[in-house]
Amino acid sequence: MTTKKKAVILVSGGLDSATVLALAKRDGFELYALSFDYGQRHRCELAAAAAVAAAAGAKHLTMTIDLRAWGGSALTDDAVAVPEAGSAAGVPATYVPARNLIFLSFATAWAEVLGARDIFIGVNSVDYSGYPDCRPAFIAAFAEAARLGTCAVDENWSYRIQAPLQHLSKAEIIRTGTALGVDYALTTSCYNPDAAGRACGHCDSCALRREGFAAAGVPDPTRYVIK
Amino acid sequence: MTTKKKAVILVSGGLDSATVLALAKRDGFELYALSFDYGQRHRCELAAAAAVAAAAGAKHLTMTIDLRAWGGSALTDDAVAVPEAGSAAGVPATYVPARNLIFLSFATAWAEVLGARDIFIGVNSVDYSGYPDCRPAFIAAFAEAARLGTCAVDENWSYRIQAPLQHLSKAEIIRTGTALGVDYALTTSCYNPDAAGRACGHCDSCALRREGFAAAGVPDPTRYVIK
Repeated sequence: MTTKKKAVILVSGGLDSATVLALAKRDGFELYALSFDYGQRHRCELAAAAAVAAAAGAKHLTMTIDLRAWGGSALTDDAVAVPEAGSAAGVPATYVPARNLIFLSFATAWAEVLGARDIFIGVNSVDYSGYPDCRPAFIAAFAEAARLGTCAVDENWSYRIQAPLQHLSKAEIIRTGTALGVDYALTTSCYNPDAAGRACGHCDSCALRREGFAAAGVPDPTRYVIK
Repeated sequence: MTTKKKAVILVSGGLDSATVLALAKRDGFELYALSFDYGQRHRCELAAAAAVAAAAGAKHLTMTIDLRAWGGSALTDDAVAVPEAGSAAGVPATYVPARNLIFLSFATAWAEVLGARDIFIGVNSVDYSGYPDCRPAFIAAFAEAARLGTCAVDENWSYRIQAPLQHLSKAEIIRTGTALGVDYALTTSCYNPDAAGRACGHCDSCALRREGFAAAGVPDPTRYVIK
């Protein structure tokens, strides 16, 4: 009997990370899904993350961290409104300062304890919101910091920060996941859902998701407030 | 009237970070002290951190994160004993996986929200416990990841991760802090204190601290269980 290699996968409850989880499963990893209750406005994504992890047969852990302690984002400060899609140039108000740096740091810690060398994250450079912490240069720099900041450096190996969606369009991501049997009805992407978890249909994240399903020719299972 | 530059300082409640805080104050920064309630065995250090921050006139925030969710260290898993000083080669059991990676990531997030470019950390390469995340190569790699994972990259500047104790002996650190008026009686270093917060006198951290005061010729204010 062989032991499966372990991987830590950042799972938000969104479309992208559900696809990443399916890719890690396809690659034969034992799955350790990590989510964060960070004070996000769209907290309903945590139930989606649990459902996505359960559907993939992953062990799932939700870490609570209070990024509202300092805010600085439309997602972690109720005084900052979620912008409409395409309403501003540059890094949008939904950018959460250093979020992926924090998330990957926790993933590295869990990986070190588990003896896992692979960490998966659903960052993307094509249909994305312009966040600096989703770019390949950041992922490469993080991998080096993780190597040097853990026992990996003394044992002469490196963490593999796997970002398999990096260069895919939203439509390609949806086709990839659909082929792997991902049930996107379990996922949620909206930054500004209503109390019932229905998507607003107007934020950046809704726009990217809706256009992705249309371009992929896959029926959009999203529950919108306004159809 | 000029506005002071802001700095985020990681403050554990120990001797080193109290000295770093005093150095940041000497350098004229407006002080934002950050501590972590991470499930550490020596949780009494959090009261020390608050006292150290108050004495320096710093704004102080304690972030709660549950590193016991995965353990992997004598400090975050009660099933792992705190080793006696000098009892093992290599990275000791008190190493907490990726701890400084996580701490610095939060510090970067707070700095980004504050508009601070300086982050202070009390890592050291001389009288220290052999942790990989206390070495200069890690600090440099982290600074690059922080730059690339935040808006700094688009604005063409870098965080300064200041580690002013990096190359000082424990005795030099104590002399530096004493000259700056640090009250080391407020600090605690022991990994295995008793319920009253008294130091065990036998762990790595106690040994380094005790030898440091002796070498510095400064009276040791530590309350030990056994004198």
